Amino acid sequence: MKFIKNLFEKTAGSFCDLPAVSCQLLMRIPFDELSSTLRRVLVKVGFAESRARFCAQLFAETTRDGVYSHGLNRFPQFVRMVKSGVVVPDAEPRLVAASGALERWDGNSGPGNLNAWHSMDRAIAISKQHAIGSVALANTNHWMRGGTYGWQAAEAGVIGICWTNTLANLPPWGASDPRVGNNPLVIAVPRTEGHVVLDAAMSQFSYGALASYRMRGEQLPVDGGFDSAGNLTREPAAIESSKRPLPIGYWKGSGLALLLDLIGAILSAGCATHQIHIEPERETKLSQVFIAINPAALPQNAVSSTIAGEIVANFQLPKPTDGARVRYPGERVLETRTENLSRGIPVDPQIWREVQSFL
Amino acid sequence: MKFIKNLFEKTAGSFCDLPAVSCQLLMRIPFDELSSTLRRVLVKVGFAESRARFCAQLFAETTRDGVYSHGLNRFPQFVRMVKSGVVVPDAEPRLVAASGALERWDGNSGPGNLNAWHSMDRAIAISKQHAIGSVALANTNHWMRGGTYGWQAAEAGVIGICWTNTLANLPPWGASDPRVGNNPLVIAVPRTEGHVVLDAAMSQFSYGALASYRMRGEQLPVDGGFDSAGNLTREPAAIESSKRPLPIGYWKGSGLALLLDLIGAILSAGCATHQIHIEPERETKLSQVFIAINPAALPQNAVSSTIAGEIVANFQLPKPTDGARVRYPGERVLETRTENLSRGIPVDPQIWREVQSFL
Repeated sequence: MKFIKNLFEKTAGSFCDLPAVSCQLLMRIPFDELSSTLRRVLVKVGFAESRARFCAQLFAETTRDGVYSHGLNRFPQFVRMVKSGVVVPDAEPRLVAASGALERWDGNSGPGNLNAWHSMDRAIAISKQHAIGSVALANTNHWMRGGTYGWQAAEAGVIGICWTNTLANLPPWGASDPRVGNNPLVIAVPRTEGHVVLDAAMSQFSYGALASYRMRGEQLPVDGGFDSAGNLTREPAAIESSKRPLPIGYWKGSGLALLLDLIGAILSAGCATHQIHIEPERETKLSQVFIAINPAALPQNAVSSTIAGEIVANFQLPKPTDGARVRYPGERVLETRTENLSRGIPVDPQIWREVQSFL
Repeated sequence: MKFIKNLFEKTAGSFCDLPAVSCQLLMRIPFDELSSTLRRVLVKVGFAESRARFCAQLFAETTRDGVYSHGLNRFPQFVRMVKSGVVVPDAEPRLVAASGALERWDGNSGPGNLNAWHSMDRAIAISKQHAIGSVALANTNHWMRGGTYGWQAAEAGVIGICWTNTLANLPPWGASDPRVGNNPLVIAVPRTEGHVVLDAAMSQFSYGALASYRMRGEQLPVDGGFDSAGNLTREPAAIESSKRPLPIGYWKGSGLALLLDLIGAILSAGCATHQIHIEPERETKLSQVFIAINPAALPQNAVSSTIAGEIVANFQLPKPTDGARVRYPGERVLETRTENLSRGIPVDPQIWREVQSFL
């Protein structure tokens, strides 16, 4: 049972996706310092003040919540993509078509997090009018942390479901070359005691997670892909080299990634994964879908008013053997948020210096 | 590479989930004979003629399409559940509440496949009016093959997304006792060359699939759960014994199963998994969600009119090495359907005799 205990512990929470050496040399800074520094950099590269402020806030909140790969650590690449013209700072999404509770928007190559926030905001507004609302967004950029838009929906009291396609970074089950994206899927349910927010890519481990394990000198807790000889492996470096990470659930995640790409491209009339540039710093013209469902549109009964709490409590019943509790999706985020707001936001000194050098 | 080739072949299509001995002794009968026999049995146990006809057709089509576990093979249990009063033959779903593009229905313990068909039908109708439509259904019974309602949506030209909760049959990641359902998720996209229909439970292998592997004396192609000592295993019998099948993607499928249960119970104001009877023949009061999105509600452009075909073609590009083609979700169903309609529907003689004994 020791193996299992370790296995669950290793996989129960967020991974430290900072390089191993940095994990030991982390410095902590106040949230406002992080956010305002990023804001100043964004203004310098062409963002209007109010947009710079909100875009920086979303990056800073992502690091605050422990999703280090898509917060500060991703910011230098984001700035390079603004400078190279892939991300257009002041481009705002434009309504292209609307029918009933469904809208299609063009992201106009604007900043991915601002476009995605705007889209979920529209979906929420539609759901307040029609009980369910959906926005399909074309020509947008990487939305950074997908979970952001799940938390956004849950904070507004509605169920949120959203996903994005990505460049081709995952071989479908049965192929050895990347043809589908890892197309993260976010599902969020509001709950008084803490929202339940799942943010799951269709690959078992992201390339960021593989790099973190490799730099810590650790094996993956479960098989994460194939090595170049075609054997399943837990060696992160072997998967980085073969470019053959595993879809979640093998054939199931492969199919799910395909369906998410299909729906995104069809509803947005935008690009599908195979039409998206394969170089990460030229990845653009993404297609995304945002769905919001407003539970308050229907009358609740005595059961349903407390059902979310009950379901999660049952999910988390302690084990008779060792009292260990299962974690629900989103729980670790809240813990990390509290800790980081209290102790300061952990930043990698090298990346922090790089960001300051933009000023 | 030999291992991989076998691995993909083993998992590429539908599994023969008939017992090993029966696989060699299959008989084939005309579709109409299968359907009309089931209809006569249903009339005998209390179904009105028209409902018996459609319920029987859905069971027969499931076997026709190669999903043997939820067609004829499941029918004897269904009849027992009608006789025991769990499934009420003539109970029809009732509209409980509606707001905008969202409706809540009570399944009144009616036959699960008729209730689910009715619900997707309503979601489709709403989507023709509001572009997107959703129905939440409480107090229903097992919907049998979930894919049925995906094909239904795709045949109507709309995108279909639906899921059901189930009795607790899957330990969440980090627990060793079953607390979540395997909550099958169905996503369907209409396509001229053949609809893309994914029907994926949140467990890597169903208990039906485990039994089939065991009876064929085969190991699972990938790890399918934990043995009683807590080690990951490919031995189907060890997982049947420990009752610890794996969620797809480990922690990810565990979280997905939780979220699907939450949304179903909240929107339908019905039961969550932990409130559902744990004995399969008393499993009832399920909660389900049906979402339909009508792509034709928005104007299509030259790209989007052919995009589904292009995406699937790219997914299926043959491998340079051996020319093998990746299968898309739903492809095997169409092949099996064609073969079975031409050669006759394969039935297990023992189950076929049992069904006839009901007459």
